[in-house]
Amino acid sequence: MLATILHSPGNIRCEEVEEPKILKPTDAIIKLSASCICGSDLWPYRGQQAVNAPQHMGHEYCGIVVEVGDAVRTVRPGQFVVGSFCISDNTCPHCRFGFQSSCEQREFMSGAQAPYARVPLADGTLVATAEIPSDDLIPSLLATSDVLGTGWYAADAARVEPGATAVVVGDGAVGLMGVLAAKQMGAGRVIAMSRHKARQQLALEYGATDIVTERGEAGAARIKELTGGVGADSVLECVGTQESMMQAIGCARPGGHIGFVGVPHGVTLDGQMLFFAQKSLMGGPAPVRRFLPHLIDLVMNRTIKPPAACSR
Amino acid sequence: MLATILHSPGNIRCEEVEEPKILKPTDAIIKLSASCICGSDLWPYRGQQAVNAPQHMGHEYCGIVVEVGDAVRTVRPGQFVVGSFCISDNTCPHCRFGFQSSCEQREFMSGAQAPYARVPLADGTLVATAEIPSDDLIPSLLATSDVLGTGWYAADAARVEPGATAVVVGDGAVGLMGVLAAKQMGAGRVIAMSRHKARQQLALEYGATDIVTERGEAGAARIKELTGGVGADSVLECVGTQESMMQAIGCARPGGHIGFVGVPHGVTLDGQMLFFAQKSLMGGPAPVRRFLPHLIDLVMNRTIKPPAACSR
Repeated sequence: MLATILHSPGNIRCEEVEEPKILKPTDAIIKLSASCICGSDLWPYRGQQAVNAPQHMGHEYCGIVVEVGDAVRTVRPGQFVVGSFCISDNTCPHCRFGFQSSCEQREFMSGAQAPYARVPLADGTLVATAEIPSDDLIPSLLATSDVLGTGWYAADAARVEPGATAVVVGDGAVGLMGVLAAKQMGAGRVIAMSRHKARQQLALEYGATDIVTERGEAGAARIKELTGGVGADSVLECVGTQESMMQAIGCARPGGHIGFVGVPHGVTLDGQMLFFAQKSLMGGPAPVRRFLPHLIDLVMNRTIKPPAACSR
Repeated sequence: MLATILHSPGNIRCEEVEEPKILKPTDAIIKLSASCICGSDLWPYRGQQAVNAPQHMGHEYCGIVVEVGDAVRTVRPGQFVVGSFCISDNTCPHCRFGFQSSCEQREFMSGAQAPYARVPLADGTLVATAEIPSDDLIPSLLATSDVLGTGWYAADAARVEPGATAVVVGDGAVGLMGVLAAKQMGAGRVIAMSRHKARQQLALEYGATDIVTERGEAGAARIKELTGGVGADSVLECVGTQESMMQAIGCARPGGHIGFVGVPHGVTLDGQMLFFAQKSLMGGPAPVRRFLPHLIDLVMNRTIKPPAACSR
């Protein structure tokens, strides 16, 4: 079969590779219904992350199970399944605590930009839909696998509550999914910080009530102004730079919550600043598996329609 | 009257000063029933914090109201009251959100190492007891004003829940009160990290179930060992150094919570480390006013007996 392999920065090829096989009794083989490129694929592609050996690309996936190992109990050939970019057993203490992205057996998925892929720990990782979804739902189901799940976690970590004011820092795919998540969680006000017309428009479609174009300290000042001097209850940080992190901290009210899902690059936080800011901070790789059943339901019953930049 | 004045590092004098007067209609004057020295008094005394002008010392207080301003409605002369080291109006959005230590009108109390003291914003700051407490309860009521309230906030910010495993980093007064708070909040296991015999003994009296003498990485490794490799649900950081903060982060499980109340001195946190640690962080000056009514009840009905190193 043909699959994408990244050999070095800028050097990605679609090559003939062997079809995946069951290697462990807990594996499943799926036939991908769709695949896509993640923003994080761009790091090694752009040379911002080392490429020490050829990499099989693709970690967002959904499709039909074609084969399972002897130990697999919860999914069977013929079912449509979605999995997280984090492979997890869903039984260890971290998984049971809702943090499958810190699973004791955690692996990161790869090789999903191909017709077939092997999914380790299939029972813990894959969620089957009740029926085979219609074609138009596939891009949205693919989005639950990472980009929506990550935006959802940002809102969860920022403890968005019904009626609350949520601010989203970052208008990329994850930020826009953060807007959708905050809206779904009942936020009364969702303020998207964006200066790109097209993304502002998407943010409004996904449920943003306000758009703020200022950034950094000016952005935080504008949020204060919009919230009667108080600040936001919840802030979703979806970028990962020093400026975006400080902006997020500046936007939250004392006692407010910041969920950060942009992988920090060159970010350092001063302890005393954090102390006197008095805002909670929770981040990390999203435990998408925790949210998958709910997100799949929302897509299947057409409550939400997240996009995926996918090729089929 | 005689009161303590800090003139410069190491130079504290008990001097004749004027008795406090009502300056604003929202003030109250109280006759102190007890007073004490806070650990934070030692910073300027030791020269670790600048002394730019003579300072009236003492910010932990309880006593009898002797006079109130015209606007004061909730306390009256003759009542026994306790207040927080943070003066707050208890009506602004931050106060109503439970973060009185970030009150829009916040002031820090001073001058309570004296027979009488002026308390600004008396309605928002002071909590009156139903009856005049007996003498033996005074030290404990004084403790609610700061040291207990701060330990309590550490447990609250660390989201201690019934049955949870809580670790307390720091065995000073606040850390010991953190042990008491975690126990009161129903923690199933309270692990005190201490290498001082006398403090270990106090920790056990306040409800610690385990003592860990290791520090830093070795301490975190010992906590992992004691929790079946998982880590603690809640960690109370009551020191404020780089080592204690990293120790606290190392002791918590993924998805666990760290409440930090030791004012950070020279602490810097790497964003990517925090991201992959995937643990929530919440700190700040304790909003003691939020907890005061409950803490006063616990003392008055003799459920708890926190100590205060007090002179009367």
